[in-house]
Amino acid sequence: MNKPTNKLYDYPMALLTDFYQLTMSYCYWKAGMENTESVFHLFFRKRPFNGGFTVAAGLETVVEFLNKFRFIESDLTYLATLRGADDRPFFEPAFFDYLAQLKFSCDIDAIPEGNVVFPQEPLIRVQGPLIQGQLLESPLLNLINFPSLIATKAARVCIAAAGDPVFEFGLRRAQGVDGALTASRAAYIGGCEGTSNVLAGKLFGIPVRGTHSHSWVMAFETEKAAFETYAKQLPNHTVFLVDTYNTIEGIKNAIQTGKELEAQGKPLLGIRLDSGDLAYLSIKAREMLDEAGFTKAKIVASNELDETIISELKRQGARIDVWGVGTNLVTAANQPALDGVYKLSAIREPGEEWKYKLKLSEQMLKVSNPGILQVKRFKLQNEYIADAIYDTQLGLKPPYMIVDPFDPTRKKRLPKECQMHDLLVPIFRKGECVYTLPPLHEIRDTTQRELGGFHAGIKRFINPHEYVVGMEKSLYDLKVKRIEEIRMDTFLHR
Amino acid sequence: MNKPTNKLYDYPMALLTDFYQLTMSYCYWKAGMENTESVFHLFFRKRPFNGGFTVAAGLETVVEFLNKFRFIESDLTYLATLRGADDRPFFEPAFFDYLAQLKFSCDIDAIPEGNVVFPQEPLIRVQGPLIQGQLLESPLLNLINFPSLIATKAARVCIAAAGDPVFEFGLRRAQGVDGALTASRAAYIGGCEGTSNVLAGKLFGIPVRGTHSHSWVMAFETEKAAFETYAKQLPNHTVFLVDTYNTIEGIKNAIQTGKELEAQGKPLLGIRLDSGDLAYLSIKAREMLDEAGFTKAKIVASNELDETIISELKRQGARIDVWGVGTNLVTAANQPALDGVYKLSAIREPGEEWKYKLKLSEQMLKVSNPGILQVKRFKLQNEYIADAIYDTQLGLKPPYMIVDPFDPTRKKRLPKECQMHDLLVPIFRKGECVYTLPPLHEIRDTTQRELGGFHAGIKRFINPHEYVVGMEKSLYDLKVKRIEEIRMDTFLHR
Repeated sequence: MNKPTNKLYDYPMALLTDFYQLTMSYCYWKAGMENTESVFHLFFRKRPFNGGFTVAAGLETVVEFLNKFRFIESDLTYLATLRGADDRPFFEPAFFDYLAQLKFSCDIDAIPEGNVVFPQEPLIRVQGPLIQGQLLESPLLNLINFPSLIATKAARVCIAAAGDPVFEFGLRRAQGVDGALTASRAAYIGGCEGTSNVLAGKLFGIPVRGTHSHSWVMAFETEKAAFETYAKQLPNHTVFLVDTYNTIEGIKNAIQTGKELEAQGKPLLGIRLDSGDLAYLSIKAREMLDEAGFTKAKIVASNELDETIISELKRQGARIDVWGVGTNLVTAANQPALDGVYKLSAIREPGEEWKYKLKLSEQMLKVSNPGILQVKRFKLQNEYIADAIYDTQLGLKPPYMIVDPFDPTRKKRLPKECQMHDLLVPIFRKGECVYTLPPLHEIRDTTQRELGGFHAGIKRFINPHEYVVGMEKSLYDLKVKRIEEIRMDTFLHR
Repeated sequence: MNKPTNKLYDYPMALLTDFYQLTMSYCYWKAGMENTESVFHLFFRKRPFNGGFTVAAGLETVVEFLNKFRFIESDLTYLATLRGADDRPFFEPAFFDYLAQLKFSCDIDAIPEGNVVFPQEPLIRVQGPLIQGQLLESPLLNLINFPSLIATKAARVCIAAAGDPVFEFGLRRAQGVDGALTASRAAYIGGCEGTSNVLAGKLFGIPVRGTHSHSWVMAFETEKAAFETYAKQLPNHTVFLVDTYNTIEGIKNAIQTGKELEAQGKPLLGIRLDSGDLAYLSIKAREMLDEAGFTKAKIVASNELDETIISELKRQGARIDVWGVGTNLVTAANQPALDGVYKLSAIREPGEEWKYKLKLSEQMLKVSNPGILQVKRFKLQNEYIADAIYDTQLGLKPPYMIVDPFDPTRKKRLPKECQMHDLLVPIFRKGECVYTLPPLHEIRDTTQRELGGFHAGIKRFINPHEYVVGMEKSLYDLKVKRIEEIRMDTFLHR
């Protein structure tokens, strides 16, 4: 199987799900509930990194996954091998016939990649047969949580770099092959200029970067010989890594090689620092380079960077022009998972009314929202001022009244003169993709443009401005009523 | 492409590397150095989670990657599109002809999966043409760092569970598709009994587990109806999730359903707690279940667990029988990357002597080891007492004297009567695999057996016992001499 591909996984992966989705599916099917119409929403609860914003990413992979969704023969052969506690086959054979003919047929609405999103907002809405909505829970969470986390982290790192180019160098310590590839793509969406990962370059068209490592230098008798040889073979790619033995001596060797290049009419493009006191060394390197006339040579820095360290280096006057960020970016080291969840919110039998559903919890934060939801974003004088989560059946009408779901004493009426638009757009209708996937560079532009539409305070790292996200009042009232009904039920049955 | 496969990535992935590996390869090739013989080692520096041990994992994927290693046509077509700073093609066409015919031909030795390893020990040694050793740096790190991290994390979680079964439930928040799959496999190696990830079950033969979620309960008018329907369809799989609305009421509903099952001669297998105070609720649930006669029903717990929380719950007397661990396990949340590195350590031209190489640093911890390395593990009276990192040319002879590389005043002579064995075994010879990959369950057994061979103190979470790993004395002396030579060189050229 050596055919060229621009997809990492180009086979159906219906089994990329948690086993309980299959046991529940089996029971829905046995109980004749498989086609009950249902609505599920995917959303997250906590602002990642305690930041003021989150960047949505991963939808393209979701579309690819759903376009190929079906159970292949080897999936069913495998499922037939599973045994229950009584050592008999877990599922009866007719279930495999059912799965073999199962065709994805849901409606899906989602917030496109590169949009700025907030807790509680549905990023994806799935409407269709209960069995399908159920099976999609685990894969959709897997395919959305991680890229959204990394796109957000990358946006933060780029904010810290304040306009300097940032490159993602995380392959070697990423969590698996597509822990790396997915991170490269998401980091680009978040604002990185490129990646070191060549396969990500091939698969996604992301610019690739890199010059040489310590081993190149070590393969020669002297560092100077290493720089010279590199420059001879790639004269237009002369960024020298200077810290293999001694950083200051390395800078001198780079400058000496630069002078030899200059004599041949070739540029010294820059140097890279990969260890030590990056503030001190970059300032020193800048002085040495400038003194030697290499004012245009760039200083690239890498080594366990993240948005906090970059901000701190900037504050200390570090003279770094280009940032290479690896592990902390691609693993989102200080918070390596987005807490996305996927909840049932409505159900109906053919010809009947919708029944709205929610999951209770002792904590209001964990009570899910009922309904068939959409998010409206309100803009006033070129700045987004609030989002309203509303139910598409209850609607959203003037006077646009929203309620803070965790503090109902906080209400807000949104000005009628606002511009407004819905965030979720149609992606699938009855299983057919109706959405044109934008090219990756457009998604990257979307991130920048959308981030620019908010109060700058949401981009602060410490105590960021909290953007207003409320529930449309009639939806909020319905939720409270539902909670009270369930609690009363429990009370009466006690 | 719907053929059954038991591999996630079944195509050659030579481009899964950092771009600088390709620029260096190009320069090696242009400079006629591509076939210079080289030795590289992959090792890590810091004990993950500040723990006392690390479990090696990932070798099987490395073997699969190397067995398929070659540049396919679409790789070369892609590389030909790359442009340098002067906007001309980056690489000259003859390089693509060279890459097209490049065949993996290295010798590889490695520590098999499931073995217990320590900082500074080479997990993989690559010996062969410089260009190949260089290209393999990034993929080998990617394929070893993450699974070793997760196998270690899983072993810690299982130690905390003290014999209770642990299941890995991390798919939904894992870092990408194989962030999940690789974690499922590594978690099984580390000691988990199974996974929720069905695709991991299919690909790796890991037992899969799971019953039902909140949405199952929400799809019914009452929780009781949900439990009854589930029990009717899967009577041998009756573990009920009890916290959708109110945990205590949920336990009552589970017990009531259990009584109805009992009347039909069917068991109530257990309940699952997924929120709230797990210590309080599990003790309460145990009382209620026992009182109703369900003394054999198990209590399963999940919800943001890790080894610290499990230890703490045990200390509080929680009555939990089975643990479901997700996000914190599969992302190794408190330290989401192993700091593995890959360094050149020796080089020679045909017919010449080896030149030993090391990378300097201000910190001794970051100075790499020169040589062609192996690790010998010493055992006395059924307990491992020390590892010696030695150079295969200098050898390791009685009196087995080792030196702490970071504190040379600490030396140790290892008793001659020890049993001893080399940790690295041959995996490839001249590019041909000479190693028989063990089945996954054997690797899992290896982990348990090997962990049992060490002083129990290495398994402590706080201030674990530090197992002795030293450098064989003549290798240590050679390293110090090399460092002094390089520093003197730098001094003289100043």
